[in-house]
Amino acid sequence: MNRRRFNFGLLGTAGALALRYPLATASGSVPQLRVNGARISEHLNALAEFGKNPQGGVSRLAYSEADRRGREYVFGLMQRAKLDVSIDAAGNIIGRRAAGNNDDSLRPILFGSHIDSVPEGGNYDGVVGSLGAIEVAQTLAENNITTLHPLEVVIFQNEEGGLIGSRAMNGELTEKELDLVSRSGKTIREGINFIGGDTTKLSGVKRNKGSIAAYLELHIEQGGVLETAKIDIGVVEGIVGINWWDVTIEGFANHAGTTPMNNRQDALLAAAKFIEAVNRIVTSIPGRQVGTVGRIQALPGAPNVIPGKVILSLELRDLDEGTINLMYRQIYLEARRIARESKVTFEFKEINVNIPAPTDSRIWPLIEESAKELGLTTRLMPSGAGHDAQDMARLAPAGMIFIPSIGGISHSPKEFSRPQDITNGANVLLGALMRLDQANLSAR
Amino acid sequence: MNRRRFNFGLLGTAGALALRYPLATASGSVPQLRVNGARISEHLNALAEFGKNPQGGVSRLAYSEADRRGREYVFGLMQRAKLDVSIDAAGNIIGRRAAGNNDDSLRPILFGSHIDSVPEGGNYDGVVGSLGAIEVAQTLAENNITTLHPLEVVIFQNEEGGLIGSRAMNGELTEKELDLVSRSGKTIREGINFIGGDTTKLSGVKRNKGSIAAYLELHIEQGGVLETAKIDIGVVEGIVGINWWDVTIEGFANHAGTTPMNNRQDALLAAAKFIEAVNRIVTSIPGRQVGTVGRIQALPGAPNVIPGKVILSLELRDLDEGTINLMYRQIYLEARRIARESKVTFEFKEINVNIPAPTDSRIWPLIEESAKELGLTTRLMPSGAGHDAQDMARLAPAGMIFIPSIGGISHSPKEFSRPQDITNGANVLLGALMRLDQANLSAR
Repeated sequence: MNRRRFNFGLLGTAGALALRYPLATASGSVPQLRVNGARISEHLNALAEFGKNPQGGVSRLAYSEADRRGREYVFGLMQRAKLDVSIDAAGNIIGRRAAGNNDDSLRPILFGSHIDSVPEGGNYDGVVGSLGAIEVAQTLAENNITTLHPLEVVIFQNEEGGLIGSRAMNGELTEKELDLVSRSGKTIREGINFIGGDTTKLSGVKRNKGSIAAYLELHIEQGGVLETAKIDIGVVEGIVGINWWDVTIEGFANHAGTTPMNNRQDALLAAAKFIEAVNRIVTSIPGRQVGTVGRIQALPGAPNVIPGKVILSLELRDLDEGTINLMYRQIYLEARRIARESKVTFEFKEINVNIPAPTDSRIWPLIEESAKELGLTTRLMPSGAGHDAQDMARLAPAGMIFIPSIGGISHSPKEFSRPQDITNGANVLLGALMRLDQANLSAR
Repeated sequence: MNRRRFNFGLLGTAGALALRYPLATASGSVPQLRVNGARISEHLNALAEFGKNPQGGVSRLAYSEADRRGREYVFGLMQRAKLDVSIDAAGNIIGRRAAGNNDDSLRPILFGSHIDSVPEGGNYDGVVGSLGAIEVAQTLAENNITTLHPLEVVIFQNEEGGLIGSRAMNGELTEKELDLVSRSGKTIREGINFIGGDTTKLSGVKRNKGSIAAYLELHIEQGGVLETAKIDIGVVEGIVGINWWDVTIEGFANHAGTTPMNNRQDALLAAAKFIEAVNRIVTSIPGRQVGTVGRIQALPGAPNVIPGKVILSLELRDLDEGTINLMYRQIYLEARRIARESKVTFEFKEINVNIPAPTDSRIWPLIEESAKELGLTTRLMPSGAGHDAQDMARLAPAGMIFIPSIGGISHSPKEFSRPQDITNGANVLLGALMRLDQANLSAR
């Protein structure tokens, strides 16, 4: 094979700081390796067919039939990108690319994202990073570029339902969680086996800390900061912590016509007071923290019956764990007050905790330089959304690249990123990857 | 046949007022016609098997398989009570009993109730009146009692989902309503055909005003008034009006992590403010009116997505239509204020309106006398719950008999009425029916 070593203006390997300046001046003198933006658009449109909603966007819930078929499509794309593709026991799709001369003395660099969506989600969240990563691999293959490190493109499964695939990889996924019912209706265990994993062999999926050279992820911002400030690329400084509880409120179901107003134990009225309190408490503290009640179920759920039971979700996010704990304490105390006032009980069940995850500051300049080389502007910013990168950050130096989301809209059929921004993002991913390949980041 | 005319202390027919006093003094001198309370209990326990919940009570939603099988069981009981049983085109079960000597010169007296339940309902609502009515018919048959009027025991279909069976009978059920989806998942049209009706022949079900001599219904109180006051029998003075709207709140679905608190259009937060406002407005007006939000759905319904849409039910009840209208106006104005404040829209869709329905005051003393004869105490009271009797009240003089509900609990698996109270109620129904048979109430 006539593979040529792609030279990013460097002779041999060097540390990240040493990389920074030579690249900026030498960029004009090396081959302009670029992804094929039109091909990403084509793949994006094709993938949008799996789980398509009548009103636009997709409902491609992890473990659904749409998810399974979308994954088959992506599996094929990865094969066409000359990756050695397999599904690991956790259901993640892994596309391996050997280092030059099949030299596996260096640890692999991983990059990727996810293709599952929330109910009535959009076509960009996870998809841009997944198809961008596959496009980078295909660009390397088409140009016969070899790398020092082995590469692995990873399409993590069930990101939206609690980062299940990446948590299997960092060893945090518990046996108990496997029996939780996902939004597809299947338990996580059933879902993993449905998409080609094997839950009896999950331990083999776990990677040890230090066994991965680095992890990179391209993603849409999902907020409006980049678009508003007219910045092309976000360099993610860290991913906020996310705590999710299910809150069960028990009152007493009774006839809506014959039970006087002052004799009621209305669980939905108590839930309404709770939802208002969450908003009031979260907005009473200075900062960027957020709190959301996104799901609610009132039982038995008939117009002529006073609800006896409500189950709702409570989600709190911030870059600072202390702020999350402060909000939770205040909300919990307020719930106790509402319980007394409304003659109901509250029970909080912790479903998922993602602690705040900083990215590796040595990777930030690699992303910044790649953007600069392309004439793109950058901003260092937090990620308000959770990502598989936060789990990978516990195993390896991790970096994340954001592109603008128009209107800041995400988790919605109206989610949109411009084709040029997607192409920019994939090119920055490619540049950062090549720089990382030449760097030698030790675990820390 | 050796049928004897049951004499309630009267010689021939007489007006209601003439009936009153002779009965009270003559009761000792006539055969003590009484229902078989043990048999009602036995039937009640058997019927409780159809749609039984694991935690007790039943979920026997109209048009469900449990409903269909429960109806088959009741159909059989009616045949055993020597009734000529059929299913009308609206799906109501009708058991006819001819007048003495098959004389059909007098209009029929109807009595009955329903056997469908709310989700996770109890074993008494509708069932006591249905099985009580069948027991009365069986008691008449076993004692070879003939009546002046033909009798019809009616088991109305789908009472809980909007009095569908009785509204078909009074001609209020519209073609459009047939396409509404009931809680069984079937449209009302599909449901009626599923239980043996024929929606192409609904016009044949309609009874003309004046074509029915009277209607009687025995029912559990579903409130706590009788038990608290230690009264045996409630004489219902009227049935409250019930207005039910579906309220749709539209905001904007967005990512719960990346959308700052002050940029949200959270439909569930607006719904919470609305639910609190309904409670505040309904309780701010003196009186016995009630208002309930019993059903809520938030879309898309994921913990990490700000709800973009909420659909909830609003139900208002009072004996006075003016009070209902006053509450609705205040709630509507408050919704407009919340819409502005929360950057959402509200849309109110009227689903069902039952105007307040007074019972016939000429029937009250017949019920009171029947109770007195049995040594039972009575109280005149409104019904906070809707009943098929309210639709029948638009066609004919109507009367309703209440028995105590323990703890005032209804529309719940914990709904309970004592066997002795059920027997008392059926005996009062029997006595009131025999008195009505002798009376001659003109339509008014």
